[in-house]
Amino acid sequence: MTAHAPNRNALWGRVVADELAAAGVDAVCVTPGSRSTPLTVAFAEHPDIHVFSHLDERASAFFALGRARRTGEVTPLVCTSGTAAANFHPAVMEAANSRVPMLLLTADRPPELRDSGANQTVDQEKLYGDAVRWYKDLPEPEADDRKLRSLRTDLARAVSTAEGTPAGPVHLNAPFRKPLEPVEVEGDVPDDLPTLAAEGRDGDPFVSTTAGHPMPDDRDLERLARALSVERGLIVAGPADPPGPDPQAVTALAHATGFPVLADPLSGLRFGSSARVAPILGGYDGFLAEGTPDGWPHPEVVVRFGASPTSKSLRKYLADTDARQLLVDPAGGWREAEFAATDLVVADPSRLCGALSRRVGQRCGARAGSASDSTAWRERWEAAEAAHWDAVDATVDGDRFFEGRVLADVAELAPEPSTVFVSNSMPVRDADRFAAPAATGLTMLGNRGASGIDGIVSTALGAGSATTDDLTIVTGDLAYYHDMNGLLALARCDVDATVVLINNDGGGIFHMLPIEEFDPPFTGQFKTPHGLDLEATEDLYDLSFARVDGDDREGFRDLYRESVASAGTDVIEVASDAAASHRVREDIADEVAGRVATLD
Amino acid sequence: MTAHAPNRNALWGRVVADELAAAGVDAVCVTPGSRSTPLTVAFAEHPDIHVFSHLDERASAFFALGRARRTGEVTPLVCTSGTAAANFHPAVMEAANSRVPMLLLTADRPPELRDSGANQTVDQEKLYGDAVRWYKDLPEPEADDRKLRSLRTDLARAVSTAEGTPAGPVHLNAPFRKPLEPVEVEGDVPDDLPTLAAEGRDGDPFVSTTAGHPMPDDRDLERLARALSVERGLIVAGPADPPGPDPQAVTALAHATGFPVLADPLSGLRFGSSARVAPILGGYDGFLAEGTPDGWPHPEVVVRFGASPTSKSLRKYLADTDARQLLVDPAGGWREAEFAATDLVVADPSRLCGALSRRVGQRCGARAGSASDSTAWRERWEAAEAAHWDAVDATVDGDRFFEGRVLADVAELAPEPSTVFVSNSMPVRDADRFAAPAATGLTMLGNRGASGIDGIVSTALGAGSATTDDLTIVTGDLAYYHDMNGLLALARCDVDATVVLINNDGGGIFHMLPIEEFDPPFTGQFKTPHGLDLEATEDLYDLSFARVDGDDREGFRDLYRESVASAGTDVIEVASDAAASHRVREDIADEVAGRVATLD
Repeated sequence: MTAHAPNRNALWGRVVADELAAAGVDAVCVTPGSRSTPLTVAFAEHPDIHVFSHLDERASAFFALGRARRTGEVTPLVCTSGTAAANFHPAVMEAANSRVPMLLLTADRPPELRDSGANQTVDQEKLYGDAVRWYKDLPEPEADDRKLRSLRTDLARAVSTAEGTPAGPVHLNAPFRKPLEPVEVEGDVPDDLPTLAAEGRDGDPFVSTTAGHPMPDDRDLERLARALSVERGLIVAGPADPPGPDPQAVTALAHATGFPVLADPLSGLRFGSSARVAPILGGYDGFLAEGTPDGWPHPEVVVRFGASPTSKSLRKYLADTDARQLLVDPAGGWREAEFAATDLVVADPSRLCGALSRRVGQRCGARAGSASDSTAWRERWEAAEAAHWDAVDATVDGDRFFEGRVLADVAELAPEPSTVFVSNSMPVRDADRFAAPAATGLTMLGNRGASGIDGIVSTALGAGSATTDDLTIVTGDLAYYHDMNGLLALARCDVDATVVLINNDGGGIFHMLPIEEFDPPFTGQFKTPHGLDLEATEDLYDLSFARVDGDDREGFRDLYRESVASAGTDVIEVASDAAASHRVREDIADEVAGRVATLD
Repeated sequence: MTAHAPNRNALWGRVVADELAAAGVDAVCVTPGSRSTPLTVAFAEHPDIHVFSHLDERASAFFALGRARRTGEVTPLVCTSGTAAANFHPAVMEAANSRVPMLLLTADRPPELRDSGANQTVDQEKLYGDAVRWYKDLPEPEADDRKLRSLRTDLARAVSTAEGTPAGPVHLNAPFRKPLEPVEVEGDVPDDLPTLAAEGRDGDPFVSTTAGHPMPDDRDLERLARALSVERGLIVAGPADPPGPDPQAVTALAHATGFPVLADPLSGLRFGSSARVAPILGGYDGFLAEGTPDGWPHPEVVVRFGASPTSKSLRKYLADTDARQLLVDPAGGWREAEFAATDLVVADPSRLCGALSRRVGQRCGARAGSASDSTAWRERWEAAEAAHWDAVDATVDGDRFFEGRVLADVAELAPEPSTVFVSNSMPVRDADRFAAPAATGLTMLGNRGASGIDGIVSTALGAGSATTDDLTIVTGDLAYYHDMNGLLALARCDVDATVVLINNDGGGIFHMLPIEEFDPPFTGQFKTPHGLDLEATEDLYDLSFARVDGDDREGFRDLYRESVASAGTDVIEVASDAAASHRVREDIADEVAGRVATLD
């Protein structure tokens, strides 16, 4: 197919599309522009690649991020030259911090126009600085054997690097000169181009990368297994790098060691099969909120996977304990900002869990005498966990519907399988504290790398576009407003969702901070009520909009059930009073603290 | 006032606000966030600084850009840590390319949390790469004599660098550790801090910069004046660096040399007093569209100011001429992408025009014999100019209302004084070709640095917020959609506008490119019709929305007159057919070419 390219740019674009398809890419996100025409045309023509067309590059990049977060596989991005590429930057930052594959194909003007004052020509070289895993300025297109081989190699490398360890963004800057359209240019593409350069490997990647997985050797594994052969230990699973750890491997380690698993809502472990067979705990953000309960001994060892936990209570608990703490990170990252960890283990978490659970199991079989201590430790955590959920139920089962309850209801009512995307600021914190572990087919996702409130709608819709799951988005009003443009994907990208919009008219999270006491400037500069009537998004976008009052729990549950049972996108706006909701959170925290204090 | 700061962060924030106020800053743009609390609180408390509160950092940055573009003075930006700062990037790029002052104050986490996996902690160091004129990572706040002196010096330097030559973005990254709120911290701010460090210079800047203006010495001026003492010359004024050249100085040079001035719509010269006293030409994009008219001699010399002209016809004309071409640039930039210029003159344009006009005037007095050649040259250009506007009138005065006519009507009907902001893609091109020079109090602005269609609404509203001018925005539907979030400034920033929304449902400019012939993918990937009912923005934002049909010229003019005569913001949507409008543009171009060919 590439042999008949009408000019060098068309050939170049087709080689890019072909190699990406050969590397497994089945979709790209494209925004319109002239300079990127050779890429856009090639993707639009490619039979195995679906084009998601967006109009705002910021939304486009977050949409691609969402797809990759859900699947672990890259969805490349195409944009024209100029500020278009800068609009990708927020999503690039999130992808870098949360290890999500991303491939940025930014069209550029030809090299001689750089720094020449030419229109729409900006400095795109290394535009994203150190946030990308790899940057390359591609050569100018030419129907030349070596250049085409280099292009094929670069594309294959770009995908394997973006999806490597750690996954993250890769930026290829692609200069083009006119003609950009597939017009015939006599002699531009010789007929006698070597077949391999022109056609590639007939659907197979031009080059393949086989990536090894870091694993300690036997002596080190034995040493680590010994470290875990104690009575009191914990497994802490923070937000997962996509596609997340293997739940079976983690539960195997939990069983072998007898350690409870403190599972972040974004760990991939709080919901799903793991919650059926292992002691998966999710109430710690509540029962550790007032510090370590009286009389609790320190753990001896903590094994940590994933990113830093969402729960501030848990982070503080881990900072205050004097246990040996092992960070397991396949990329050798030291993601532990309390500086309480003692050991870094550079290893693939799932494989390490498997190897250690076998070794620890053998050891534990040999020390049956200490089983009761181990059991007491575990039962203490399970009792606190139960106390937390009892207190939550006791406080919210009455008339006091509040923001946090929404997350519990969604986690309970979401059909299986579901992807539930929680926004930053309050929703992810409420999910952490109020969504109980459950053996349901629920994948909970959030942008917890840079933890911005930007790009939430787009990331969620991108995640939804990547599976046949039901999609629920739980977001506050500021995040909904910030990425309102992202709602255009509902119509353009054939995805729909139930959007639970917790509207407390501004930044409710600031009620949790000391700045609440200083007004002004609290209301004007922090809480920032905007008074937007977000129902107007119904007329703009492909959705229906319903409102429910913040104290009408059954009303919300009915609307939610109806929405997930029907096609199309429904926004359910829950009118909420941030200050009052925060008071309910405080009451629950008091109640939990009281119950935990009476244990033992 | 700083002496009673409750803690070091509060002191630090106040010093920042005080020094910026002393440097002349009277407004800042702030987006809510926790990490930036010390800055936000200090700005909100400062009696001489107005806080524009935005919710989307991308819109905030463009709003600040618009203010600075209109006034030439910086409006600092404040944001919290994380992706917030990356959302500034598109506007930073535009500011860098179009030499608009910008000061970015990005709050950051304390240094020990960088690269530690801490939440919302990203790599903000040198975030904008080479796009900023100056970057500094500020030290950690401390009530220390030397540190406070350094902070005061840095702030004063930041403003003078941002407003220097070339003007542009400056980035100060500001780490803070808790407590971020103005809570009392015993002993954090000693009572015996040296007064100078704590209080500054009582409203005067801590340090002042006196910037010299580059000017050739007498011998070089004489040489340049000799080069201009010829019969056939042109003065080309491209888009201006704010605040733009002095019209009197440029017209003085035009009179002294007898050269016509080809004035870009964004040059600051096409509209206003200069158009009354000098041969200001604006029709060249039309009458040069088919190349140099037959029989026209080459110019001998061209003097060029400002950025590369918007007009492609003019750029091509200049590329094809073999004249000596002098680029005048105060920053020594070589902003000429046809590579036809021969001389760079590093000088302040206004001062150089003044100095050269005196010298050339003396020379020309001594060579009266050649005056007729000079006159013939000038009359030729003036005749072509007249032919262009006659042809435009003849073609559009009938029933064929079309997109380009809107710009002519706005330029004609805008009340004085007005700021008219034209979007990229078609509006600025239509302004170039269809808005005739006029001695009206009209300031036309556009984002012609990176020429993106992002941030248009916000930039325009920012520009409007900086003056008491009437504000008109002319934008297409894609740019209106892209920066819809910017409309929130209508309610929050006490600014209003008449928004002329030319809705051709997608990217009309692509009809001007060869890709129009390739469908698919033309409609799906380039034209990208979205079908958005933009009237829904009436319910979301503080505006009223009216529609007018694309062939109802009088209807449009009536609505426009009503809107500028009334308070509040009106959006006038002009339903337009991009393909048909493009055909009218082609007809006018043919008509102009025919008329110009019959001249002489």
